Amino acid sequence: MSLSDPITATTRTTMTRLRERARTDRADLHAVLDAGLVCHIGLVRDGAPVVLPTGYGRIDDTVYVHGSTGAGWLRIADGAPICLTVTHVDGIVYARSVFHHSMNYRSAVVHGSARLVTDAAEEIAALRAIVEQLSPGSWEHAREPDRRELSATAVFALDLGEASVKVRSGPPGDDDADIAAGGRWAGVLPVHTVFGVPESDPTLPPGDGVPTHVAERRPGQRTPPSETDHGNG
Amino acid sequence: MSLSDPITATTRTTMTRLRERARTDRADLHAVLDAGLVCHIGLVRDGAPVVLPTGYGRIDDTVYVHGSTGAGWLRIADGAPICLTVTHVDGIVYARSVFHHSMNYRSAVVHGSARLVTDAAEEIAALRAIVEQLSPGSWEHAREPDRRELSATAVFALDLGEASVKVRSGPPGDDDADIAAGGRWAGVLPVHTVFGVPESDPTLPPGDGVPTHVAERRPGQRTPPSETDHGNG
Repeated sequence: MSLSDPITATTRTTMTRLRERARTDRADLHAVLDAGLVCHIGLVRDGAPVVLPTGYGRIDDTVYVHGSTGAGWLRIADGAPICLTVTHVDGIVYARSVFHHSMNYRSAVVHGSARLVTDAAEEIAALRAIVEQLSPGSWEHAREPDRRELSATAVFALDLGEASVKVRSGPPGDDDADIAAGGRWAGVLPVHTVFGVPESDPTLPPGDGVPTHVAERRPGQRTPPSETDHGNG
Repeated sequence: MSLSDPITATTRTTMTRLRERARTDRADLHAVLDAGLVCHIGLVRDGAPVVLPTGYGRIDDTVYVHGSTGAGWLRIADGAPICLTVTHVDGIVYARSVFHHSMNYRSAVVHGSARLVTDAAEEIAALRAIVEQLSPGSWEHAREPDRRELSATAVFALDLGEASVKVRSGPPGDDDADIAAGGRWAGVLPVHTVFGVPESDPTLPPGDGVPTHVAERRPGQRTPPSETDHGNG
């Protein structure tokens, strides 16, 4: 990945330890965000934290989330400080010592204030980004939202200006004495996210094929596969 | 799963919408927690939320997390309100309409105050639970923590008294008009977490076998496989 603007370091995003796990490249941040399905959003409600999983999408240096206008957390989010975290577990790190057991992972933590999206064009673009992150190719394949559906949906924007990325990879970091002692296995058990066989909706007519953007979807893929079957069964 | 004590419903954990997705069975809560590798912990720092991924373990109705005594978030956690969330993505829900796109998932959200564990026996039990959640069988196989390692580790407890579980499963919930219109695929693309081939540490002597608790580990498995190779290879 190419070097570009470094991610701003603030008190919140400057690591106090394990600095070697911190990345400051904006392309790293985008890559971690783009590879995910869910983020965990933190809000403060009555002085206490609330952490909720939700889908999201990214356009340039803005990340978007959405929800029903009736959802409690969306009613308190506008202008409020929020934290958005995306984590990928890449492996279980087995060490000779319990102490050095760990995980290989990539995580992005974004701090900022939520901004309610009110511009109609930005709202549509944001919803498209959210849907394409969840299901690449669906925006073209599925029926776009109508006015009633849009009015039932709230979209929030979060600027990526204050963010940090942490990555751990590679073998365990055992103490020399434990390595020399021998007799215990150490290594990494890789963890992968995979897709199973698509399950067509039971109300579909028999014989309706699974479109390419679903059948050929691969994990981490952001750009949808080229569409040859456009759902005309 | 058997019915047991219902999870306490409070203002924070009573769903304001989509009540059919809420589960109130304590066994459901335990199952969602036990199947995970990472949780996302929310804290409030200087009035703003912070959401961090970390490993965890459960003993009965207490969940434990740990970290270095030098980690910033651990220094502010004792007695503070925290939120601990575990999420499993089970499928991508493709609908005829963009609006009804969704995810199948299981999530648990726990609210409470973090309690610094100071009792030595509880700390060891908690660390064992955390290690066994990450890597079943490792506590028996690996070297247990010594006094120096224990003093460098802080463990926090969170009571499961205030928690909620949400589950979505099954096909999309399209509008009748979209189903009748035809011409668009709908269904579920299952999402699974799988383990790859174990990668032995490069410092191990050639020919050292991968022990059973790693080689035969399956996702979601909490009890370690019976150990036949205890790493003396």
